[in-house]
Amino acid sequence: MGIIISYLKGANDPDPVTGLTPREKSLVVSSWNLVKKDPAGNGVELFRMFFEKKPEYQNYFPFKGIPMDKLVNDPKLKAHAVSVMYAISSVIDNLDNSEVLITLLQKTGDSHRRRKIPEESFNILHRTMLELLEKGLGSKLSKEGLDAWDKTLTVAFKVVKDTLRTVETSD
Amino acid sequence: MGIIISYLKGANDPDPVTGLTPREKSLVVSSWNLVKKDPAGNGVELFRMFFEKKPEYQNYFPFKGIPMDKLVNDPKLKAHAVSVMYAISSVIDNLDNSEVLITLLQKTGDSHRRRKIPEESFNILHRTMLELLEKGLGSKLSKEGLDAWDKTLTVAFKVVKDTLRTVETSD
Repeated sequence: MGIIISYLKGANDPDPVTGLTPREKSLVVSSWNLVKKDPAGNGVELFRMFFEKKPEYQNYFPFKGIPMDKLVNDPKLKAHAVSVMYAISSVIDNLDNSEVLITLLQKTGDSHRRRKIPEESFNILHRTMLELLEKGLGSKLSKEGLDAWDKTLTVAFKVVKDTLRTVETSD
Repeated sequence: MGIIISYLKGANDPDPVTGLTPREKSLVVSSWNLVKKDPAGNGVELFRMFFEKKPEYQNYFPFKGIPMDKLVNDPKLKAHAVSVMYAISSVIDNLDNSEVLITLLQKTGDSHRRRKIPEESFNILHRTMLELLEKGLGSKLSKEGLDAWDKTLTVAFKVVKDTLRTVETSD
């Protein structure tokens, strides 16, 4: 009965809000489950790769001014990296719950707008995340999986960037 | 060999930073693993119980003014509840990593200081969390487990409250 209902509903139809298919969501969730096992290690590596592309962005963080060779062992970077990894997990775990998903991403946009973070940084983070996934997962991430991530990050960061652009009225 | 080294080191010695024993940490981690399975459900229930004690605190949130009967289904509350549950998970997962743990809690203090959140709210959150754990876990949480949570929340919220009290110098 479940199968019949799923079939009638179109089990492979894209989500009306995110445009992601169930297959794409599943590829993203399963690969993230591997990466999130080491939030500190993978989170610090994400930031190391990010600052390698754009060293001046370190100025936006509470660990600004620390040389890169010391930065990777700095507890402030590690804590920030850990909290970013948990925030990504909260998004990935809610890919099927579009109302909560959008609100979580808007919250990210709000908090970064307050700190005047440039929109471009999310494009760089997008590229860095794809590179981290490729590097970290190797043959465990297929081309189809990487494309699913690319689509997911495009959709997610669009919400963040749209929120960054809104004019603050109160708060 | 591992057992001998642990014994020599004093495997039941309290953590020098948090004062928590390995047994206390283990009780907290294992009970949280049950609660975190439903971040939206348990997170919303945490906030419902919190506002039941202190309705006026709703004014500090982006979902202020929404009547309680509608609030529990509001996506903004749900997203906030989900992100709080993931933040708690990041803390619990780092109970053994005191440098990262303290920095994560200071980040929480910093962000709440910026929003001028009263220190008392963390005392109310502390009580509400213990009640949620008792209510949600029932016989799965022993008196010893509840005491371990009480001690953990006392230590954790002390760091948050100390940070709330510091004077902002830059940022």
